[in-house]
Formats: sequence, C-alpha cells, structure tokens
Amino acid sequence: LSAAGESEIDPGAVLGHPAERAPDLGPLRLGPGARVRSGSVLYDGSTIGPGLQTGHNVVVREQCAIGADVWIWSNSVVDYGCRIGSGVRIHSNCYVAQYTTIEDGAFLAPGVVTSNDRTMERKELEGPTIRRGARIGCNATILPGVVVGAGALVGAGAVVTRDVPDGAVVYGNPARERRP
Amino acid sequence: LSAAGESEIDPGAVLGHPAERAPDLGPLRLGPGARVRSGSVLYDGSTIGPGLQTGHNVVVREQCAIGADVWIWSNSVVDYGCRIGSGVRIHSNCYVAQYTTIEDGAFLAPGVVTSNDRTMERKELEGPTIRRGARIGCNATILPGVVVGAGALVGAGAVVTRDVPDGAVVYGNPARERRP
Amino acid sequence: LSAAGESEIDPGAVLGHPAERAPDLGPLRLGPGARVRSGSVLYDGSTIGPGLQTGHNVVVREQCAIGADVWIWSNSVVDYGCRIGSGVRIHSNCYVAQYTTIEDGAFLAPGVVTSNDRTMERKELEGPTIRRGARIGCNATILPGVVVGAGALVGAGAVVTRDVPDGAVVYGNPARERRP
Repeated sequence: LSAAGESEIDPGAVLGHPAERAPDLGPLRLGPGARVRSGSVLYDGSTIGPGLQTGHNVVVREQCAIGADVWIWSNSVVDYGCRIGSGVRIHSNCYVAQYTTIEDGAFLAPGVVTSNDRTMERKELEGPTIRRGARIGCNATILPGVVVGAGALVGAGAVVTRDVPDGAVVYGNPARERRP
Repeated sequence: LSAAGESEIDPGAVLGHPAERAPDLGPLRLGPGARVRSGSVLYDGSTIGPGLQTGHNVVVREQCAIGADVWIWSNSVVDYGCRIGSGVRIHSNCYVAQYTTIEDGAFLAPGVVTSNDRTMERKELEGPTIRRGARIGCNATILPGVVVGAGALVGAGAVVTRDVPDGAVVYGNPARERRP
Repeated sequence: LSAAGESEIDPGAVLGHPAERAPDLGPLRLGPGARVRSGSVLYDGSTIGPGLQTGHNVVVREQCAIGADVWIWSNSVVDYGCRIGSGVRIHSNCYVAQYTTIEDGAFLAPGVVTSNDRTMERKELEGPTIRRGARIGCNATILPGVVVGAGALVGAGAVVTRDVPDGAVVYGNPARERRP
C-alpha cells in the first residue's frame, strides 16, 4: 500500500488480493483515508485515490484506475480494467463490467449492471461509458459500448441499448428518451 | 446484545458493527433464537425481534426496526431506517432502500430492489411501502414512495412506478394491473 | 472433502457449511483443482466436479450436482437442489433458484436471476432449464419452469416468461423472439 495511514480497515477485509489473471501489475496502490468494511476485497494491480469508502463484501479487481472520494457500497463488484473518476458513487449490489468508464460525479443506484459483451461469446469486451454526473437508476442495465451522456438520468429498471444524449432522461425496456 | 442466548452465530459474522453515520443510536438489540450465517453484518442501532434468520453476507444497517421471525437470505442488504414487520421474507441479492416499510408477511423474491430517491440528487429520500402479505417477484424494482397494497402480487422483472391496489396483480415495465 | 489436493482455498472461505435444512446428505464432495476465493461458502451435501472456480462471497447450497470446470463469480448464489453441467459460467451477482437445471457450456451474465415459484406461495417450486450453450444476458429474469433452448441468446434485461426455442434470440419485457 502506498499509504494506509489514516485509513480504517475492518477485520476480514483484504487489501492486495493476488491478481492471478495478471500477476505482473504490481501491488494495490490505495490512497490515504480509506474506509474499507468487512468482507471487502481490493486486488493488487489497481490504483485508487484518497478517501475510498466501501461497504461490506465489495470486490474491486485488478487494473482499475479509480479517482478520489469514491464510494462503493455493499455487495458491489468492480471488475478488472475499469476507469472510474472522482466523487463517483456506486451503490449496493451493482456490477461494473470490465472496461467500463465512469466519469467524475456519476451515480449508480443499487442493482445497476453494466455489460461489455454483446454476443456473450467472450471474444471482444467493450465496456460502456457513463459520463460526468450521469445518474443511473436502480436495477438499470447498460449495454456494451453505450455512452450515457453527462448529466443524463436513466430511470429505474431501464435497459439502455443506445447512446443517451447529455442531460437526457430515458427509461423503459428498451430505454427511450422521454423529456429533455 | 439484549439476548444472544439460544442464538447461533457463524464465525465471521459481525453483530454490532459501528454505525459511523449515527453513533448515538445505542447497541444492536437482537432478539433470542437468531441464526446469523457467515459474512453477515448487523449494525448497532437497530432493533430486531426474535427468530431472525440470515443467509451469508447479509448487511442490516442501523436505525431499523425489524419484527419477529424475519428471514433475510444471502447477499441482501437492508439499508438504514427501515421498518420491517414480522414474518417477512427477504430473499437473496435484494436491496432494501433507506426508509422502506415492509409489513407483516410480505415476501421479496431474489433480486428485488426498492428505491427512495426519484431524482438521485440525494436530497429527499422517501422509501416505498410494501403492505401486509404482498409478494414481489424476482428482480422487480419498486420506485420511491410507491405503496404496494396488501396481498398484491408484483410479477418478476416488474418496474413499479405507481401505487398498486390491495390484492392486485401487476407486471411489466412499467408495471400495469393485469387481473384482479 | 474427497480431494482437496491441488486446490487453493482462500482464508475465510468455508468448505462444508452444515446443511441445516437437510443434515443427512453427507459431506461436500469437491473435485480436485478447486480455486475458492474469500467469503465463499460451499455447503455439505453437494457434489462438485474438478476445476471449480469461485469469486468472492459465492454461496453454493446443499443437494446440488455440479459438473467439471464450472466458474461462479463474486456475490452469486446457487440455491439448493440445482443440477449444473460442465463448463458452465455463472457470472457475478446472479441468483440460481432451487431446482434450476443449467446444461453444459451455458453462460449466465451478471445479475441474472432464475425463479421457481410462480405464485410466491412457496408451495410448489419448479426451476427453469437452461439448455446447452444458452447465453443469458445481464439482469435477465427467467420464470419458473421455462426452458431456454440450446444455444439460445436471451438479451440483457429480458424477462423470459415462455419457453425459448433452440438457437432463438429473445429480449424485452416480456421477452419475445426477434430473429432466428
């Protein structure tokens, strides 16, 4: 750890779980002031800024670059290779797929899943991009490669199959724009 | 704990995790006969009746009032400030948002998410109410402030955006009443 | 354990959790070469072939028969009485209901939930069947008794209420066939 000073790590949390898939990425680099709660596991090979907060049973895999003051709540998983800005909130029971980009200040409500594999043949993985300040509602699903625009609002339960313009409000399955 | 006698708590479960957000709420008050399985965490500042059963990796936050004989299965989260009656079943991988009310005998199937923040600006939180004996299907999403009536049945995958009358059957996205 | 040789089990994982519901099923039978990560719990009374891989906080209940080279990722639950073939992939945050059958090579994307109780009265449980090589998209929900055909593709966020023919592509809520 680059700086565990001031951090508070619950017993039973794991900092620096081996990244068996990519063992040469180096150690976990975790900024100061982290609060990591029981059952959470942060992998080697990721870089996380100051002020990380996790709930319980959170998993952050390797090869992620995560900014400052990011909160990830209980039972959420951030898979490998994600780029997450500062001030991002990932609520409970979310799954953030490999190669997802989440920009500063975006909010993922509980149960959100991002995906990266349109055919599920596990050949090419392309994560979606959630732009600055976008808000994604509970249990929403974001399809591979989709861009959710800055400040957009995705309704609860939406299945987002196309790009969402900046500031748009979308919902439904498939999600459609409802009002600007 | 007020009464841990007769209870069976797995190694690795945490009874009385500090409620850092609200440290003055007092200890966890857990009734007798609890069965709490590994990885589960019950916070200080909640009151839980006799006969609690949890699966694994369950989180119950502070400021909750939970009745008797409630079961909460693996990887579910009950966030702070919820009121949950007796005989309630919260199945696996559910998320129960802050200030949700769940009355006696209601059933949440796996993957259900309740929500409390329509704009996701985190200003006003208003949880939904699930009335007595209602049954909520797998992966359903219940929007903020919605009332699901007594004995109502919400289909799997439904996104419930409006109040549901007592005894009604609703499903779809958005959920609509289909037969009485 | 029949063969833990060559296996690698993280500290904090539990092999052989008591099956309190069915204590006479015998021990966990886990094939060689398993990799079980922290927080995961495998119950007594299940039989799992060689090469099991789990992420973190995975629960596999009793009375399951699981083939070779199965991967189950973080925060997923396989409930009791399931039959799972070889080479199956169950991704993160999934819930596999009691009495679900998943044939060889099928893939469940993150957040998939299978269900087994149409009325949620907990009288008769009938799990769905996911046939060989079928792929189920993120956050999809599969209703009780439904058969998803071999090689079928279920889109992200789909709610599958009817049988899906072999090789079909379905999506939406309710899921409908879109192209062969």
